[in-house]
Amino acid sequence: MLYIIGLGLGDEKDITLRGLEAVKKCEKVYIEAYTSLLSFGISSDGLSNLEELYGKPLTVADREMVEEKADSMLSQACHSDVAFLVVGDPFGATTHTDLVVRAKQMGVDVKVVHNASVMNAIGVCGLQLYRYGETVSIPFFTETWRPDSFYEKIKRNRDLGLHTLCLLDIKVKEPSLESLCRGKKVYEPPRFMSIGTAIEQLLEVEQKLGESAYSEDTACVGFARLGSEDQIIASGSMKQLLTVDFGAPLHCLVIAGETHPIEEEMLGFYMIKE
Amino acid sequence: MLYIIGLGLGDEKDITLRGLEAVKKCEKVYIEAYTSLLSFGISSDGLSNLEELYGKPLTVADREMVEEKADSMLSQACHSDVAFLVVGDPFGATTHTDLVVRAKQMGVDVKVVHNASVMNAIGVCGLQLYRYGETVSIPFFTETWRPDSFYEKIKRNRDLGLHTLCLLDIKVKEPSLESLCRGKKVYEPPRFMSIGTAIEQLLEVEQKLGESAYSEDTACVGFARLGSEDQIIASGSMKQLLTVDFGAPLHCLVIAGETHPIEEEMLGFYMIKE
Repeated sequence: MLYIIGLGLGDEKDITLRGLEAVKKCEKVYIEAYTSLLSFGISSDGLSNLEELYGKPLTVADREMVEEKADSMLSQACHSDVAFLVVGDPFGATTHTDLVVRAKQMGVDVKVVHNASVMNAIGVCGLQLYRYGETVSIPFFTETWRPDSFYEKIKRNRDLGLHTLCLLDIKVKEPSLESLCRGKKVYEPPRFMSIGTAIEQLLEVEQKLGESAYSEDTACVGFARLGSEDQIIASGSMKQLLTVDFGAPLHCLVIAGETHPIEEEMLGFYMIKE
Repeated sequence: MLYIIGLGLGDEKDITLRGLEAVKKCEKVYIEAYTSLLSFGISSDGLSNLEELYGKPLTVADREMVEEKADSMLSQACHSDVAFLVVGDPFGATTHTDLVVRAKQMGVDVKVVHNASVMNAIGVCGLQLYRYGETVSIPFFTETWRPDSFYEKIKRNRDLGLHTLCLLDIKVKEPSLESLCRGKKVYEPPRFMSIGTAIEQLLEVEQKLGESAYSEDTACVGFARLGSEDQIIASGSMKQLLTVDFGAPLHCLVIAGETHPIEEEMLGFYMIKE
């Protein structure tokens, strides 16, 4: 049996009792390292906190391992209980869907233990979850690669009065271009997009395309370390959010659509004071 | 301090360690009864399961209490620790946003403990969460009240290739019209919309409005008791889903938009066999 277990958003205490029970009976426990482990606060002592809580060692599974060596993990799961731990909920990322497909193809039973994810925890700011349109991803711009497909989606959402969740780029264990050319992988240091960078890129694209999808005066909500004890939630215009130091990753950004009175009242509590 | 604690979707084991820790230190523990408590499996022995786990009694807070008598709960939270337990995640429903607003107005500190909700757990079927458009609600039709505002939203989502989550109506502790006329509230038995009823209503509206938003051949996914040990997930056309007995509530329905190969592979595992 393969258990895919969501860890939630904060720290080791955000696992559910059901999840902890499953971990405790598994012979082998993997934890994904390729999306948001650092932001989970398990970069240094966090992993040992988890190991202490579980009473067993963890194997950190990075992107390469999950994508290239999943078969060995799945073979183990054919004849014993294996846990694969995921920050947030197991189905925030396509990679995990892929893992389930491969498991089922190999005849491995899969059980999922759900938990909170960014997709629902953003509800805490007061903007109602059923009033969101399509989610967008904002990728890091490079000198030569400045994709803007998110723009049309945000415009569409806002034209309909809907809110937009912007997921901000994460680069963990990306092989450097130079090292790929040399045939031996050397990894770039991890990078997490800040709310400030996201807003700068958003405003650059608005300036280029000029269809008034949003402006520096558009109401937004910035979230840093959502679900953690030290989370920051701040609402204000894009221009105002640019002045906030949100601190360590992960960050995400919501661009508001039309707001109802109860939504405005909640946003008021998170409003940046000038 | 008011703790608003998500219980997750299945049973008492779906609370997080953080949530359980908070409950254990609270002097008074309320649990909401007005949305989906029955489906949580705590109609008869479930409540005592929770009370046993928590080591203290629970006060069931029905809709009237939360909407009309929240102030007494909030006054308690001014000078002691009070927990308010919510099935799923605290911000699935507008009512909880309202509670937070009232708490903050009274100067009561609020801490939220997140958990899985239907909004993210539907990811388990393989349709990617970032490819959903606006969520719709399907209300019970009556002889004289057959609202169809969901139709336009589903059409818009499908025209954009996006999936649509349909939340199905729940009627718990609704005063009967007759009793309201007599001035003394008598409550209707609880009702939960089934996937079958939802599809019948959807097809009726399509037949009436005729804009080809969807048809009986449109691919859908039906979920019953999502996140519970006995959950059912079945994919197929609307027509096919009408033949499935999904059993006890809660049900919800996803209408697929355009699907990617990896999404189709996952849906294949849940496909109804004919």
